[in-house]
Amino acid sequence: MSVTQFCSVVLTVILVCAMLTGSQIPSIQEGQSECPILAEHAREIEKYKPIARKIIDFFLSGDMKGRTYKNLNNFVDNYGPRMLGSSGLRRAVTHVYRGLKRHNFSNVRMEPVNIPVWVRGTESATLLKPRLQRLSMVGLGDSVGTPDGPIRAETIVVRSFKELEALGDKASGKIVVFNQEFISYDESVSYRLNGAIAAAKAGGVAALIRSVTNHSLLTPHTGLMYYQKGVPKIPGACLATEHADLLHRLYQRGEGTPPTSLHHSLASPHHSCGLIVHDELSAGKKLVIQLQMGAHTIQNKTSNNVVADLPGTSLSDKVVLISAHIDSWDIGQGAVDDGGGLMIAWGALVGLKRLGLRPRRTLR
Amino acid sequence: MSVTQFCSVVLTVILVCAMLTGSQIPSIQEGQSECPILAEHAREIEKYKPIARKIIDFFLSGDMKGRTYKNLNNFVDNYGPRMLGSSGLRRAVTHVYRGLKRHNFSNVRMEPVNIPVWVRGTESATLLKPRLQRLSMVGLGDSVGTPDGPIRAETIVVRSFKELEALGDKASGKIVVFNQEFISYDESVSYRLNGAIAAAKAGGVAALIRSVTNHSLLTPHTGLMYYQKGVPKIPGACLATEHADLLHRLYQRGEGTPPTSLHHSLASPHHSCGLIVHDELSAGKKLVIQLQMGAHTIQNKTSNNVVADLPGTSLSDKVVLISAHIDSWDIGQGAVDDGGGLMIAWGALVGLKRLGLRPRRTLR
Repeated sequence: MSVTQFCSVVLTVILVCAMLTGSQIPSIQEGQSECPILAEHAREIEKYKPIARKIIDFFLSGDMKGRTYKNLNNFVDNYGPRMLGSSGLRRAVTHVYRGLKRHNFSNVRMEPVNIPVWVRGTESATLLKPRLQRLSMVGLGDSVGTPDGPIRAETIVVRSFKELEALGDKASGKIVVFNQEFISYDESVSYRLNGAIAAAKAGGVAALIRSVTNHSLLTPHTGLMYYQKGVPKIPGACLATEHADLLHRLYQRGEGTPPTSLHHSLASPHHSCGLIVHDELSAGKKLVIQLQMGAHTIQNKTSNNVVADLPGTSLSDKVVLISAHIDSWDIGQGAVDDGGGLMIAWGALVGLKRLGLRPRRTLR
Repeated sequence: MSVTQFCSVVLTVILVCAMLTGSQIPSIQEGQSECPILAEHAREIEKYKPIARKIIDFFLSGDMKGRTYKNLNNFVDNYGPRMLGSSGLRRAVTHVYRGLKRHNFSNVRMEPVNIPVWVRGTESATLLKPRLQRLSMVGLGDSVGTPDGPIRAETIVVRSFKELEALGDKASGKIVVFNQEFISYDESVSYRLNGAIAAAKAGGVAALIRSVTNHSLLTPHTGLMYYQKGVPKIPGACLATEHADLLHRLYQRGEGTPPTSLHHSLASPHHSCGLIVHDELSAGKKLVIQLQMGAHTIQNKTSNNVVADLPGTSLSDKVVLISAHIDSWDIGQGAVDDGGGLMIAWGALVGLKRLGLRPRRTLR
């Protein structure tokens, strides 16, 4: 589904919600496969079919065709990354505010919000032993840094939380690398979110997590991470999948076990039989990584929500909220997260206004 | 074809060449589709069928199964990038030398070679106007640097050499970005090789070239570049494709022309019709890029070729050369370029030796 198609679908759903009569909309139960819409609502929704058609046509083949995508492209090109506290975000917020003003929406306003701002600072991770290799890494949002200077520590590599637990106190004082299998974002992201907690509980001094992705060109992915009350806050960062695999192989060879990732591709058992086998190059060798992160958090900074209304008619005190976040991570442009959402929400309001449609409830 | 399969094929071809009787092997004419082998050779080759089978089996299902891949993996894991002049290369060269010695090949020797060593140094490219954006770049091999401090210059973006020529002296004093279409590596690499020459001829102060690839995750690709006698040497670097596209869009909007890359995806013409169109944000705005490159070349450094022989029998003074380069670029591990070639050549020699096969001609 293209951004434009998605926009028209979202808009249609929103409009139907905003137009419905005042009765309560039943909540959808998890796992419920039947459509939970009451018969009276179904009849009412049916009446909006021509309007829904009009909206869809307006976005798919009318004046709005390709607009949302084009606006999104312009937006991210012009403002780029929009980290909390960045000039890019400030400029983007002002832009959204002015745009809504220019389109004569009601109650266009900035809502100041007090936020903690996480600052990445400079950062690097370098494999020092068994050989020198600058690692492709990126710090995780909300991570603490290494304010007392780089952490230089022996490193262990595990495939899972379970494997870490099984090591007992072997992780104590060490950097813990999680080279977890990628199952799905929802499942595997748990390592990014909770890796630093698990590593700290095991006595680790930092957590390096395989990027939560199944596709990489030495590309580390960032995202949020968590801390837990009572557990020491240790730095957390993601590694490109290739480097997580590299560390895992070197670690396993150092421990005298054949690399599992190679096992997958080789049917024959591990034996040297007089050939050129270099495993002895790594045998017994420890991994040492140096981690430097300038990450820190500044409290009590101010940013702004931007709010605008398309006032409802008979039920204008009831509000249907269309929302998206303007800010983004710093290492991309936030085109999908959440520039697309922002432009869809914006396009929905503008599209309705241009079609001269006004719902019963206020769209905010 | 796997590395192992390829290895067995290469080895078989090499062996057949090395075993043939002394008569001249006819050269293959370009575009000739018929096999140019003489009838007498064909008969002779036929006799080697059982030996060829033995070699293939040895690599595909015998003791060499998976060896070449495993050795390659160990090699790149243990030595990593092997730039000319790097400790990784020195260690790798020593490793290859010792390995050949250990396998008792004849005349195992290092041949000192005098080489110029290109050093990357620190490098960065930053878009300063119309907004701040660190660009994903990598300097090109043999490029000069910016020894007098960063170059800060207005920037133009072109799609082709032809487009640059058509601009007349508009490129004078500017940074030239080539955002060429990716057709194929062989065709498109011409921009990386000759971009700095073309830009300098047009009066440009630096050349930034779209990475020669059709796949990128903000990943810039390096490689060699050329200079031409009588044409000023200006710095050359590659940009990630995404950033080459970004610069192109910003440049085209600045020039008041709609971005061509967007044109492809939008059927509707460029018109604002009262919607949120941000093109005016970029209109008339110039691009300014700051380029810093510590690249320089050190003459008269020494590296070593590693040579070993598997002596021939009746035609031992004739030599069939199996060759691969040990060095690699610095930003990868040179697994394909040319670790694979090295391990195939090595595996071929070891495989023959282990099978007790000795060709008429010397394999070097």
